[in-house]
Parts: sequence; structure tokens; C-alpha cells
Amino acid sequence: MDMREANELLHRVAAGEVTPEDAASALRADTVTDLGYATVDHQRGMRQGVSEVIFGMSKTPAQIEGICRSMIAAGQSLILITRLSQEKFRELPEDLGITYHEDARMGIIGTIPEPDGMGPVMVACAGTSDLPVAEEAALTAEALGNEVIRAYDVGVAGIHRLFAHADDIARARVIIAIAGMEGALASVIGGMASCPVIAVPTSVGYGTSFGGVTALLSMLNSCASGVSVVNIDNGFGAAYQAHLINHVANFH
Amino acid sequence: MDMREANELLHRVAAGEVTPEDAASALRADTVTDLGYATVDHQRGMRQGVSEVIFGMSKTPAQIEGICRSMIAAGQSLILITRLSQEKFRELPEDLGITYHEDARMGIIGTIPEPDGMGPVMVACAGTSDLPVAEEAALTAEALGNEVIRAYDVGVAGIHRLFAHADDIARARVIIAIAGMEGALASVIGGMASCPVIAVPTSVGYGTSFGGVTALLSMLNSCASGVSVVNIDNGFGAAYQAHLINHVANFH
Amino acid sequence: MDMREANELLHRVAAGEVTPEDAASALRADTVTDLGYATVDHQRGMRQGVSEVIFGMSKTPAQIEGICRSMIAAGQSLILITRLSQEKFRELPEDLGITYHEDARMGIIGTIPEPDGMGPVMVACAGTSDLPVAEEAALTAEALGNEVIRAYDVGVAGIHRLFAHADDIARARVIIAIAGMEGALASVIGGMASCPVIAVPTSVGYGTSFGGVTALLSMLNSCASGVSVVNIDNGFGAAYQAHLINHVANFH
Amino acid sequence: MDMREANELLHRVAAGEVTPEDAASALRADTVTDLGYATVDHQRGMRQGVSEVIFGMSKTPAQIEGICRSMIAAGQSLILITRLSQEKFRELPEDLGITYHEDARMGIIGTIPEPDGMGPVMVACAGTSDLPVAEEAALTAEALGNEVIRAYDVGVAGIHRLFAHADDIARARVIIAIAGMEGALASVIGGMASCPVIAVPTSVGYGTSFGGVTALLSMLNSCASGVSVVNIDNGFGAAYQAHLINHVANFH
Amino acid sequence: MDMREANELLHRVAAGEVTPEDAASALRADTVTDLGYATVDHQRGMRQGVSEVIFGMSKTPAQIEGICRSMIAAGQSLILITRLSQEKFRELPEDLGITYHEDARMGIIGTIPEPDGMGPVMVACAGTSDLPVAEEAALTAEALGNEVIRAYDVGVAGIHRLFAHADDIARARVIIAIAGMEGALASVIGGMASCPVIAVPTSVGYGTSFGGVTALLSMLNSCASGVSVVNIDNGFGAAYQAHLINHVANFH
Amino acid sequence: MDMREANELLHRVAAGEVTPEDAASALRADTVTDLGYATVDHQRGMRQGVSEVIFGMSKTPAQIEGICRSMIAAGQSLILITRLSQEKFRELPEDLGITYHEDARMGIIGTIPEPDGMGPVMVACAGTSDLPVAEEAALTAEALGNEVIRAYDVGVAGIHRLFAHADDIARARVIIAIAGMEGALASVIGGMASCPVIAVPTSVGYGTSFGGVTALLSMLNSCASGVSVVNIDNGFGAAYQAHLINHVANFH
Amino acid sequence: MDMREANELLHRVAAGEVTPEDAASALRADTVTDLGYATVDHQRGMRQGVSEVIFGMSKTPAQIEGICRSMIAAGQSLILITRLSQEKFRELPEDLGITYHEDARMGIIGTIPEPDGMGPVMVACAGTSDLPVAEEAALTAEALGNEVIRAYDVGVAGIHRLFAHADDIARARVIIAIAGMEGALASVIGGMASCPVIAVPTSVGYGTSFGGVTALLSMLNSCASGVSVVNIDNGFGAAYQAHLINHVANFH
Amino acid sequence: MDMREANELLHRVAAGEVTPEDAASALRADTVTDLGYATVDHQRGMRQGVSEVIFGMSKTPAQIEGICRSMIAAGQSLILITRLSQEKFRELPEDLGITYHEDARMGIIGTIPEPDGMGPVMVACAGTSDLPVAEEAALTAEALGNEVIRAYDVGVAGIHRLFAHADDIARARVIIAIAGMEGALASVIGGMASCPVIAVPTSVGYGTSFGGVTALLSMLNSCASGVSVVNIDNGFGAAYQAHLINHVANFH
Repeated sequence: MDMREANELLHRVAAGEVTPEDAASALRADTVTDLGYATVDHQRGMRQGVSEVIFGMSKTPAQIEGICRSMIAAGQSLILITRLSQEKFRELPEDLGITYHEDARMGIIGTIPEPDGMGPVMVACAGTSDLPVAEEAALTAEALGNEVIRAYDVGVAGIHRLFAHADDIARARVIIAIAGMEGALASVIGGMASCPVIAVPTSVGYGTSFGGVTALLSMLNSCASGVSVVNIDNGFGAAYQAHLINHVANFH
Repeated sequence: MDMREANELLHRVAAGEVTPEDAASALRADTVTDLGYATVDHQRGMRQGVSEVIFGMSKTPAQIEGICRSMIAAGQSLILITRLSQEKFRELPEDLGITYHEDARMGIIGTIPEPDGMGPVMVACAGTSDLPVAEEAALTAEALGNEVIRAYDVGVAGIHRLFAHADDIARARVIIAIAGMEGALASVIGGMASCPVIAVPTSVGYGTSFGGVTALLSMLNSCASGVSVVNIDNGFGAAYQAHLINHVANFH
Repeated sequence: MDMREANELLHRVAAGEVTPEDAASALRADTVTDLGYATVDHQRGMRQGVSEVIFGMSKTPAQIEGICRSMIAAGQSLILITRLSQEKFRELPEDLGITYHEDARMGIIGTIPEPDGMGPVMVACAGTSDLPVAEEAALTAEALGNEVIRAYDVGVAGIHRLFAHADDIARARVIIAIAGMEGALASVIGGMASCPVIAVPTSVGYGTSFGGVTALLSMLNSCASGVSVVNIDNGFGAAYQAHLINHVANFH
Repeated sequence: MDMREANELLHRVAAGEVTPEDAASALRADTVTDLGYATVDHQRGMRQGVSEVIFGMSKTPAQIEGICRSMIAAGQSLILITRLSQEKFRELPEDLGITYHEDARMGIIGTIPEPDGMGPVMVACAGTSDLPVAEEAALTAEALGNEVIRAYDVGVAGIHRLFAHADDIARARVIIAIAGMEGALASVIGGMASCPVIAVPTSVGYGTSFGGVTALLSMLNSCASGVSVVNIDNGFGAAYQAHLINHVANFH
Repeated sequence: MDMREANELLHRVAAGEVTPEDAASALRADTVTDLGYATVDHQRGMRQGVSEVIFGMSKTPAQIEGICRSMIAAGQSLILITRLSQEKFRELPEDLGITYHEDARMGIIGTIPEPDGMGPVMVACAGTSDLPVAEEAALTAEALGNEVIRAYDVGVAGIHRLFAHADDIARARVIIAIAGMEGALASVIGGMASCPVIAVPTSVGYGTSFGGVTALLSMLNSCASGVSVVNIDNGFGAAYQAHLINHVANFH
Repeated sequence: MDMREANELLHRVAAGEVTPEDAASALRADTVTDLGYATVDHQRGMRQGVSEVIFGMSKTPAQIEGICRSMIAAGQSLILITRLSQEKFRELPEDLGITYHEDARMGIIGTIPEPDGMGPVMVACAGTSDLPVAEEAALTAEALGNEVIRAYDVGVAGIHRLFAHADDIARARVIIAIAGMEGALASVIGGMASCPVIAVPTSVGYGTSFGGVTALLSMLNSCASGVSVVNIDNGFGAAYQAHLINHVANFH
Repeated sequence: MDMREANELLHRVAAGEVTPEDAASALRADTVTDLGYATVDHQRGMRQGVSEVIFGMSKTPAQIEGICRSMIAAGQSLILITRLSQEKFRELPEDLGITYHEDARMGIIGTIPEPDGMGPVMVACAGTSDLPVAEEAALTAEALGNEVIRAYDVGVAGIHRLFAHADDIARARVIIAIAGMEGALASVIGGMASCPVIAVPTSVGYGTSFGGVTALLSMLNSCASGVSVVNIDNGFGAAYQAHLINHVANFH
Repeated sequence: MDMREANELLHRVAAGEVTPEDAASALRADTVTDLGYATVDHQRGMRQGVSEVIFGMSKTPAQIEGICRSMIAAGQSLILITRLSQEKFRELPEDLGITYHEDARMGIIGTIPEPDGMGPVMVACAGTSDLPVAEEAALTAEALGNEVIRAYDVGVAGIHRLFAHADDIARARVIIAIAGMEGALASVIGGMASCPVIAVPTSVGYGTSFGGVTALLSMLNSCASGVSVVNIDNGFGAAYQAHLINHVANFH
């Protein structure tokens, strides 16, 4: 149960829609669940503002299902499953109510909330092949409550394609710059923007792109200040931090 | 001339303290200066919210002096020189009015402004040897207009030392987590904080610390969400982005 | 024939259950067997206290069978086969009497002995995906004669999950700390425990986890003293050394 | 204050040599001291069985002095300073009473205790150039209360030199195997010993020894079971863990 | 046509078994053949003492067939095809007369000659998994005209297995030492032998064995003199050089 | 529309074959097309002299089709698709009129123009396995309007095979030197040629060839001057630059 | 003696200024000189169009002097010495007539010729710290007979600084793009230019710039076509190839 | 005492020049000497045919002196000290009778024997900067009893310089090919020679030469068969193995 959910619950108590007893019961559910293969951290939403997210890549469908049911039982209203392949999604029972987003390789249980951040989050990527990472970032940001501006295939080989988005760059509160190969997009955006830029290297490329290492190193050495970096292909992590930045005024 | 300086100038025009002509002249000065060895970017303050900062490491004292004088001439009121060794500082002329901060290896011309961010920036480091990077980050953040909370030598080998700062972690709007060796501090803070965490790996360690690469890799793979990373020993870059995050409400 | 087996044999001679002639014959069998593709080392149990273990990963089912039969013929009562895939297990003849443990990817011939070490061995892992390595370690330790405490999915992103095991950490004689990604679990346990900690990096992660190299480097640079490290995913090796430590009082 | 020191204190109270009040005062001193540049962890001795050790490499003489005085004030009777260069040692005030061991690059305040472990710790190194690491390990083990057997320059190029130490290998409770270059010593000892072996790669070599990385990788891949590894040149860390193993029976 | 074949041809001319005209014709055939996809170097046998060998790994069956037929046409009596998978072998036409050696992954056209070197070549490998490389080396050496002594699975974890071959080590003129993992076998043999040792790292291992890189680095840093190294898994190359060494007296 | 196409169009207007209105319409089409997944850069031909080329490796057939149709609609007369697997080619609709070149892994729409460069471009490769890269380079160069000389399988192990091409080396205006393994071909050609040499490392080899990294490093360190390097297996990129060099006189 | 020098000599013969005998003698001098420590290649000028250049970095002053005198004796009229430190320059005898260029770390004997290439060579660098490499490139290009356009400190963090040079980019026949850190300048210029771009990574940066490796990898993965790369800091090599490109029309 | 020395001693006994008692005494001296910091292996000469050689790089002058005196006392008539800097040489006492060879960085005690191998050893190096490694190899080979042919600065950038040595290549029994940078010399010689080639990569170069790693990798991937490799800059090791090869007929 994250802070928004807890607040909603308490408002519904205030509005008489939920009895204090039921609310208490829901909040009491909010503890650690030990599933043997997983120790589900129901406190994370209260502690960090965002409920635990399921990283689907190295989990079996049975494990994913178990964790989902544990979260549902604890009252978590929005559940994200990242790196969920279509094969695994098909093995999950329908009654979980998962909506599958193929481009983003994500499954979502529950309804995406209205944006409530300070402003838009821009998601820019250099090439067509960066799309899965870009969509993971964009959908995560939306699911956490952010307006998202998408600008795809705007790499520096044709830099006028990026400049066409100058207004978006100026309007964004955070920009997620996604690129493989030499990753120059992050530096160029970093030199244009006045808001924080989070760079995501992707594993796009061949030979000396080394599965994204070159883009990563390039982004870590950006000559533009104000650029920080996350792991290769980690669209989720970038969106998570963008969300925190876009809601930094809400924290206290 | 950054946005604060430009605003001040315009307020002083409004208050009759500066004539419109002098203001225009000052603003006109705000262009690129080509020094041969450097093309000083006077627009950066307007474009990105923070004026250009001088990276002193690979510049000669004569080059640093030249760039300082060009910035002074263009009306920049606060000038930061990072990675300025004591030797280089001593070769710079006194009339530049540089205050030297040995711990942070930084020189500053002008007066540090009052904090005007959304809240405090916390600077935490794991060990005594991380101090130069921590001070570079802390002083930069202060110079850009942020309140700073310092928590030094709080590495995870004695994790109670970190937990003693739980209130600071809760109060901070951004946390800069600095560590060498295995860099675990970033993950542990990342799991406790509800605000964005910027991790700075340091070159502290020996053998397989590989000059900070191990800490960097560790931080990029943080199991806690919401952690982004900058280059090894890049205290300045982390503080710069922390400043942007702490002022993200001010952008528009 | 390891020392326990030899001792049992001698006790059975003393008890009149085995004739001295048969015992001598069994001990004589305890030599090197040259199978062409393998030189089985029957002395290892006497020399090092633990009989030879079969590393199944790069051996054919026929080779594994041959080595098993050679060991059985030499009187080895407990045979471990590590990294045994289910496919290979199915190709092995039933009369070998192998019990297959899928979680641990291990096959065992014979009966697991009662624990006879100084105290419990704790096996802790950071995430759900580390389970195969954790189970390889736990089952190996049990098979060699150790009580095992399991604590799974207790990574530092929710550090209260680890602290819930503080009593186990205090009670253990050796702790095996298993983690992928940034491997911070080893440092945090290393800072809490007063017994030796053996860290096992796992290949869990993506991008810059580099198949476990990041966790390995992190663990080698642990800021906590008393942590040593084995190869990536080497749950067996960690359990083997944990067993030696837990029986160090028995050596002479 | 480590457990031995605390026990001694309590015995002296029992013997009437110390008043309960003075003992309480000494124990109360046993808290964290914040020196600004360092947060000295006086609890470590109680928590982990060994008091905090000063890693001298990246600390200034003034910082080392400050930490020493803080430990002395807190009643710590034995203080180790590792990686202490002769230059730094000479800058430290004489009244601290540091004994300097040049071979081991260590300074010691206080008296080395009588050995009280289960048996001897063997320190073996492959070549003459490994001596500084070997002595750091040997002296640390002695200072923590262990009998030490030294076997130096016994590398595998003349393997009879190692076999001459077969009795020592059989008698040791733990063996620290130290080697640079190809690090084969660890595997050969690992195949001969029945006790735990801790391998320490050294930075000895040139070209593709890569400052110890080759020896490290070699040791991590030892074909002999029961070998774990610490960071390059980390003689201290190996001795620390050897001490824990040699005292594992004492823990509870 | 290599030197042996040319010599045989000339002896048969001398013996009247071949007309000078036919011999000339055969020798004339001995030129470069351009197949479009390959420029077959028929001079190599004369220039370097060994005819060209076909590296089968990255060639199509059609290309292999074409090169074989070109060599047959040019009078080459013994043709080796290395890294020939069983699949590719099956696609090659039977009339080429290839004998397939599965263990060594090699195909051979023609008859293996009697050994004519100065003495035996020893092929030693550390583990069962090194067999394919060891057999590639052994068969190549035999095919080039060398007596071969095989000693397999004699790794240093049970060093008595190697010492059982001390006489072979003394008798050999060249030793090929093959090992994966930490590659210590090369150093130990290098310290025992008085003849040249050629070390072959293999890709056997997991985790930090890095596909043979660790064994390679270990072998390059052998503390024993007189050890040289070839590429990972390059059994052929080691045997080729062993052959040259074993025939060095024949060169002129 | 590249410069040649634009020139042809204008000549056809001058010749009365095209009305000025149709020409304008064709030129107007020459803008950026946003396909969602791709932002096609129709200006590239005018800006850089060569129209945009489709990198097929990481695009779906549907994306490739969409980009092709967008280019056709914009009047681009020659379309290259590189790294187009036969499987993808088969999924593309026939009406696109793609000619598929299997050796070069390329698809081409339109007619290859007559060579109009200053002289021939030589494409040399070291071994049979380098053919796919060599053909990608050769066909690209031809498609851009260059005469190509092919010299395949001329590696330095039989250096007379290269010297047989001395006249071609002297006649070429640019040489593309392609090699895997140790990549020595580039240095040897670089020492013979008086024209620019572009080196292409290939991923041919095994073990320490590291997928082409060894050849790349070798080529970057060529002891011959005048050699520059492109990414591993990047035959297209080498041919592209060779084309620019061969047409450098045409630029203005 | 390079081709220009040989041509001049022959013209002077034609003009009666030199006797055929003296010309022949000068041409005869044009052979290899074996100095023991060096085999000076006087044929290079004839073979490759540019006389041999002295790489001063790892040569002693005595060796440099010897090679210079050998070249002078052979009639070479222009001698370049690259990577010549000021210290070495001062140890060279004055009568050699070396002009020292400190910025470029080069010494030159003889007179720089008039430009005779097809057009200008542009040398662009990203930052002030790239100057030594940029000047090495610029001076080398001038010394070989090229007009040079310099554009320094035009990195992408303030991309308007680069766009101010759009006309130079359009006018250049070859562009040398020099950058350290993330090396993005090469990609951005590569996307704007219609002539060949040679990228030079520099060792400028810290931490993960890895002494220029990051910039190198970035440039090898440029998303813009037509960019090739030389070794880190190899300004000379880039200028050498730029010269060849700019004179490609002259070759035959 | 190596085999030649032992043979000489026995001949002198046979000739009545030495009494059997003195010979026995000399042979008895031939045991291991334990100097504390070193365990001198006097058996190596008998076991491996070459007496122990002192690697001077990481030893103090006092240690070198001690080992020398131990060897002299044991009757070793020829002592080599490799990697002996001039500074260390000057600190060694004159009465040891060391002759210092600056080019080779070696000291020698005793008289170099007459060559007694099967033929000459060729030492070829690519550039002037490879001289120290080449001389270490050449002098070592001579000191062990081999005729040496030197061919220096014959790198492939001017390949005619190498071809001028074709007769030497044909005459040599072993060739040591030494090169830094891209190390192509080894492949080219490997393709020309019919005897074994030992390649020595050197640390000559800059940037991506990575201190010799590029040359090493290049040599390991030589497209010519019959090339084996030793560690970077290991001229001694190459000469040692060349000596073994050149004396392989003498072994038994």
C-alpha cells in the first residue's frame, strides 16, 4: 500500500465509505509476507512512496502469480510486472486481471492513476531499436502518476529531428534520454535542458557496442552537467527516479 | 549570467537602481567569448539555469585566469573552479578574489547565495577517504543555493552509524551517496529513502576496486530502485543534478 | 572413502560386524581408478576429509555413470553429483539409486548423515533468483554433515527483512552470503556477524551485472572484514569450505 | 573493546582489581566517536569479536593519530594500523607508543596476546616478492592471538620446496596461501590440505599479471575445493578470517 | 605437397616407379589455386614443412569439399580438417574418403605416417572436460608424424595422479599441457620437465573462468620458465608447434 | 533524394521531360517522415550526399517495409537495406521490388549506378570466413557508384597471395582491408599503399579473438600510417567512407 | 625522398640546375640505412607519397639525432619529429635546425610547403584540454601540404558553438574531429558533414573515461555514417590520412 | 649446477684434475638453500637442464647478493640476473664479479659458453623501442649456449626490411619474434618460417596498445601456425624456451 492508496483509504473512511475497522484491517495486512521463494515487502509503499514492483525476468510464472496474490491480499491496488515476456504472461491465470503491454514488456493489474506530478516527463530515444526500453520507461512513468511526452528516433545523426522537440525539452520537468550505440543523445539533450536528465544506455548495436557498455560509458562521461545514469536497458529504473523527481515537492 | 542573476538585474532595473541601457549592455555581454584555447559559453546560465563552471584539472593557471576574467567581464557574479589543486591556486593572481577550499579542491569567486531549494540535500559518504569527493559535492550544492546535511564515514560495516541518520534521510529532498570499495552504501540508503538518490562511486580502495570501477558497477546494479549514478569521483556532477532536482519546482 | 566412512568401517570391525579381511579389501579398493576419460581419486576422502564429488556440468551421462560405479566399487557410501541437469539425470540408470534435487540441481547416492559440526551453517540469499545457488550450498552442507539455517530473499533493498534474522546470524558458526546484482548483502552481513562469512556472487542481473562479475568485485572489496569469496554461482564450493570451518575442531 | 578485553576487565572486577564503577565507565566509553572525518566504531569488538583496525593507506597522519587517541580513550588495549608507510609512521607522535614492523608495513600499539586458537595458522607464499603481504598476514594473525607457521618462497616451479612442508600443512587449522603471477600455489595446497585454505593473490608480476588480477582469477577457479579468496594483496583480510576460523569454537 | 611427400616422389622417380614427367607434372600442380572463396596455398608444404590444413569451423561443407578436391588435385596425400562437426562431416561426399574422429572433432584424408621425430610428444590434460582439445592435439601430432603419450585427467587437485607420469615427462621431447579453470597444470609440469612445454588453455569452467581467459593468463604468467602458450582451445596449434620442435633436427 | 538524384531531376526539367511543377512536388516530398517507430530523414541525401540507408538488423519486416514505402514516396530512387537476413527478406512484400544479395546480406531497391568516382575501391580480405563483411563492403561501394576490385583470402600467413595483387594496390584510390583473428592484413597493406586504407576488423576467430576485438585493437595500433578503423564487421561503414573519399573531388 | 621532392629534383635537372649525375647520386642515396638501433626506410616517400616520420616518444635524443642525420644525408628536405618533449628537444644539437612547436609537441626540420590539396582540412576539438592532440593534427596536416581550418573548444555541451562553424564544415574536404570524455563531437559532426570525418579520441577525462577508451568506443559506434577512427591521442595519424584523402586526386 | 657443469666436473674427475672427494662435495652442495626471504633451488640445473636464474625486478640488492653468494657457494659457474636496473647493479658489491649489460638490463657472473645447439636462434624485433626486450632475449640465448642472429627494426610497415633477412629466417632453428603495437611481425614471420616461432609482445605503444596487451592478443591469434607466445616483455622466457628447442636433441 503506497502513500496515495493509504491516503485514499483514509479519505474514504472520512467520507464514511469504509469503516475504520475495515481500514485497520487493510492496513494490518500491510506486512511482510514470506512465500518461501520470496519475502514480499508490503511496507515499501509506506517507506518509499512506491509499492514493490515485480521484476519478472528471472521469476517463474508460479512465483509471479504467488507474489501478485500476496500483494492483492495486502490491498495493493496497482501492481506492475516488468520484463514480462509474452510467453510468461500467457501462463498466468486470467483471474489476476493483468493487462499486457507488449511494446513495454510489462503487465499491469489495476488502473493507471491521473498524473499528479509537477509537470511532464519527457522520454526521448535515439533509434527505432530503442523502443522496448523507451516504452518500459514511458509506461512505468505513466503508471506511477506522470504525464509523459514521447520523442522517438531522434538520434544525433540527423540532429534537426531532435531540435524539432526543443519546446518539449523546455517544458519537461525531467527528461529520460535513451540511446544505444555511442549514446551521444544524452550529452546533446544535457546541453539543451534546464531540468535533470536521466540517461539510459541500451544494448542496441553490435561489435564494440558491447551490449550497451559503450553507451553507458559515454553517458557517464557526458560533457554536459546534470546527467545521471542507470543500468543498461533499465527503463524502469529511470522512470522510477523520474517519478521521484517529479514528485519531490510532495514528499513532506 | 544565470537566471537568478538575470532576474536580479531586471528587478534592479524595475527598482530604478540600474538603467535599462546598462542592463541591456550587461545582457549583451552575455555572449560566447572565444579565447582561442576556450570558447566560453556565457549563454549557459540562461539556457540551463546554472552558469558555466570551470573544470580546473586539465587547464593551465593562465587558461583558468583567462576564463575567469572573461566571465567577470560578462557579469557572472559567482564563479566555481573545481579540481583546482593548491599549486594551481597559488599561481592565480590575487586580484581575482578566489576563496580556496582545500578539502573540496575548489576555488570560488563571489558570495555563496542563501539556500532557495525545496529542502535539504544530504551528502553521505562511507569512509574517511571519501572526504574530498564529499566536500566537492557539499560545497557545490551550497554554492548553487542548497542547504546541505553532511553525514560522513557511515559505511555499512557498522550500519548503526548510518541508522543514526534516519531522520536526515527522511528530511532530505535529494541524497548524494558517496562510496568507494564495494559501494554498498548507495543500495542501503536507496532502500531507506523516499527521495531520489544520486550515487557517486569513488576511487578509494586497492586491488580489485579498480580505481572506483567496482563501486560504480555496484551502484549501477543497486537492488533498490530510484538510484542513479554519475562518473567516478564526480562530486560536482552529483551536486549539480541534486541542485536541479531540488529546484525542479522553480523551472517554469 | 572419507574419514567418517573409514572410521565406521573400523568400528564395525571392532564390533565383529566386518571381518578384518573384508575391511582390508575395502580399504585396498581405495586407490586411483583410471577410466580413460577420468582418473578417479579414491584417496581424496582420506587426504582431505571429503570424498571426491562429481561435477556434472561438462560430463556426459555415460561418464557420470562410470565414475559413480567406480566410486561405489571402491566403497564410497555417499556420492554427490553437482550441476546435474534434469535431462542428464533422466538418462542415468535407475539402479544407481540417485535421488534428484531439482532446486539444487544435484543428485545424491546414499543417505545424508546426521549433522556433526560445531554449530549451524546459515545460508542467506538476496533474491528469489538466487535460489538455485542457495539450494546447492544448503544441500551440499547438509550432505557433508552440517545443520543448515536458510534465509532467502533478504536483500538490502528492504533491510528489515535481514534484521529479522539477527538471531540466526548470531547463532551461526559460518554464514554463506549469496547475492547477484550489486552483492551488498555480503558486506552488510559481514558487518553484523562474528563468525566467518563466505560470499557467493551469483550471475543474477542484467546489463552491467556482467554475469556476476559486479557482485564478485563488490564482495572482494567488502568494507567489512572477515569476508572471503568463491567463484560466481559456486554454491558447492562455499558449502565445502563452510563444512571444513564447521569441522575444524575435528581435524586432528 | 573486544570480547577478550571485556572479559579481562570483568575478571579484574571479580578479582577486586577494578571497581565496578571504573569498569562501567570504561564500558560506557565504548560508544561511537564522531571525529568529523571518521566515525570510530567502538562497538565492533563486542559485536564482531575483533576491535576496529585502522587502515592507514589513505589516511593522513593527523587522522591516524586522532583515531588512535579515540581508541585509547575508549580503553582499546591493542590497536593495529595496517598499510602504514615508514614515512607516515615517522610523522606520528612517539607518545602513542607505536611499534613499527617494516616488513609487514604495520604499526601496533599494545602487546600481542598469547595464542588461544584451536591450532596453528600456516602462512605460505610463492616467492620472495610476496613477503610484504605474507608478513602483513602473519603479523595480523599473531596480533589477533594465533600461532603462525611461516613457509616462504615455496612456489610450484620447484614443487619439492612445498612438499618439504607437508607436515606443517597437515598440522595447520587454516592455511593462508599467498602468490602472485599465476597463483598456482593455492590450488596445489588446496589439493593437499584437509583444513580451509584462504588464498591471497598478490600484485607481484608484470605484463599480463595485471597487478594481481591473473592470480586472483586463478585462485577463484581453483580445481581444488575448499579454497576461498580475498582481495589482491589483502594479507590483513585473510588473517582476519583465518583468526575467525581458528576461534570458531570459542564463539558461543 | 610437403617436404616428405616431395622427397617420396623423388625417391620413387629414382626407383623408377614414377616417370620424371609425371613427377614434374605433380610438382607443377603445386601452385596457388584460387577458388573465389579461398586461395589455396599449395606452396605451404614446401615453404613450411607442413601442407595447408583446413580449419573447418567457419567454412561451409561446400567450401570444405572444394578445398579438399583442390588439394587432392594438387597431389597432397594427407589432408587434415580440424573443427569439423559431425553435422558437417555427414554433409561431405563419401568419395572424399574422410575418416572422422569424433573425440578430436577432426576429419582425415589419407594415411597417418610412421612417427619420425626425435622422440615422443606428451599430451597431458587436467580434467575430463579437456578431452576434445587434448584429442585434437594428440591426433594432429600423430598425423604430422609424431609418437604421442597421452595422460588425461591429471590435474593438480590430486597431484599424485600427475607424479605417476614422471617417467613420461622425463622421456618426452615436447609436452603439451592442457587445462581450463586455473590452468595450474602448465606451471607444475613446467617445473618438472627439461623439455619445452606448450600450454593450451581450454574454455572449460564457469563464472570467472571467462571462457578460458583465466587459464590463458595463468599460463602466460607461469612461474616456471620454458612454457609458451597458444590460443584458447587451440590443440591443433600446440601440436603443430610440438611437431616443428620434435623435427627441428630435420630442418636443414 | 541525394545530390545525384536531384541533379538528374533538374536536368530532366531542363530537357523538358519533367514539368517544373512535378519537380517541385518531388522536392517538397523530401522532408522528414514520422512513422512513430521511425523518423525518416529525407534530407540526408541533400545534406550529406548519400540518402538514408536502412540498417535491417534490429528492425521488424513491418518497420522495414514502412520505411521503404516512405522513401519511395519521397522519390528516393535507390534504397539499400543492410544486415537483412534471408528470413526477413522473405517476409517483405514482393511489390517493393527488392533484389536480395545473400553473400552481402543486403537488399537493394532500384538500379546500381555507373561508377563515377576518381578511381577504383579495392576490397581485400584475409580469409574465407570474412566474405560476408567483404561482400557487404563491396556491394555497398558499387551501389554508391564506385568501381570495386575484389581480393579475397589473401591473409599474411601466405603473403605471396597478397603480393600478387600489388598492381591493384597501386591502382586503388581507397583500400578497404578486412580481417579477423590478428588483423595483420591492414598493417601490411598500409605499408604498401599510397592511398588511404580503411580497416574493418571482423568477428572471425575463437578464444582470444574476442569477437573481433583483437583484430580491432591490432588495426588501431597499425605501425603503418594512413590506416583508420571502423566498428567490427562494419563493411557498410567502411564502404560509405571509401565512397566519400573516392568522390571528395566532387563535393563542391 | 617523397614524390614531391623527387619531382622537384627532376624539374631542376630539366631546368639545368642539377646535373643528371648529382640527381642520380641523390636518388641512389634513397635506400635503407641500417643504424643498428633503426633501419631507416628511405623508400617510403616513393612508395607511399610521404617520407618517413620520426616518432619521438620512445627514442633517445641520440637515436633521434642519428635518424635525422641519416635522412638529411639521403636528401629528405622536410623531417617531422612527433611526440618530441621539450626536454628531448633541448638535448638535440642546434645544427640540425629543428624548429620546435610546443603546443603540438613536434619538431620540424625544413620548410613547410604551400598547400596543394583539393581543399581545406578542418580540425575541430571538443575542449581546451584536447589542444595538444589538435595541434599535432593541425601542424602535421600543414607540414604535409594542406590548408587547415581550426575550430577548438566546440563540444556538444554548448552545441551552438559548433553550429557557428557550419560553413567551415561545408567547405572542408576532410574533417578531423577530436574529443575526449564521451566523444560525441564525432557523431554530431558526422551527421552534419558531407565529407569524410576522421575521429580522434583523446585521453582527456577521468574515472570511466579510461584514458580515452570511452571516447574511442563511442566514436567506433557513431550513429552517423562516414566516420572512421584512429588510436587514442593519434593526431598525427588522423592528419596523415586526412592528407592522403585531400590528395587522392593526385595519386596517379 | 646444470647438466653441462656436472658433466664438466665429472670429466675433470676423469682427467684427474679434481678429486672424487671434491666432486662429491661440490655435488652435495647442490641442495636447496633457505635464505629466509628465498629458498634457492640448486637442483634446478639437474632437473631441468638450466640452473636457476635470478629475476632482479622485485628483489632488493641485498636479496640479490645473498642469492648470488648462495649459488656461488653451491658451485654454479654461470649466474644470470635479469631485469637488473643500473641503480641496483651499482649497489651490488664488486667482488661478485658481475658484468652489466645495459641494453639487456642483465648482469652476468661467469663466462658465456660456446654455442652448442643445433643451429642459430634468430631474434627479430619490429622497432627501435623493442631493443631492451630483444637484447634480453639475445643475451639470454647466448648465455645459455646458442648462436644468435639479430635483426632489429624490421617491422611490417616497410616489409622489404624483413624480406632482406629471408636467408636468416631459413637458416634459424628457432625464431624469437618481438613486437609491440599491433604485433603483426609474428604472423608474417610465422608464415615464412619452417622452424618454431616464439612471439614476444612488448609494451611499446600508447593508447589502445594497452601496455602490450594488443600485441599479445594479436600474436595469440596469429593466422600462421607454429607460433606460440610468452608474457609481455618476457625476452628471457622466450630465449629460455628457444634454448630448450635448440637443444632438444641433447636431452637424453
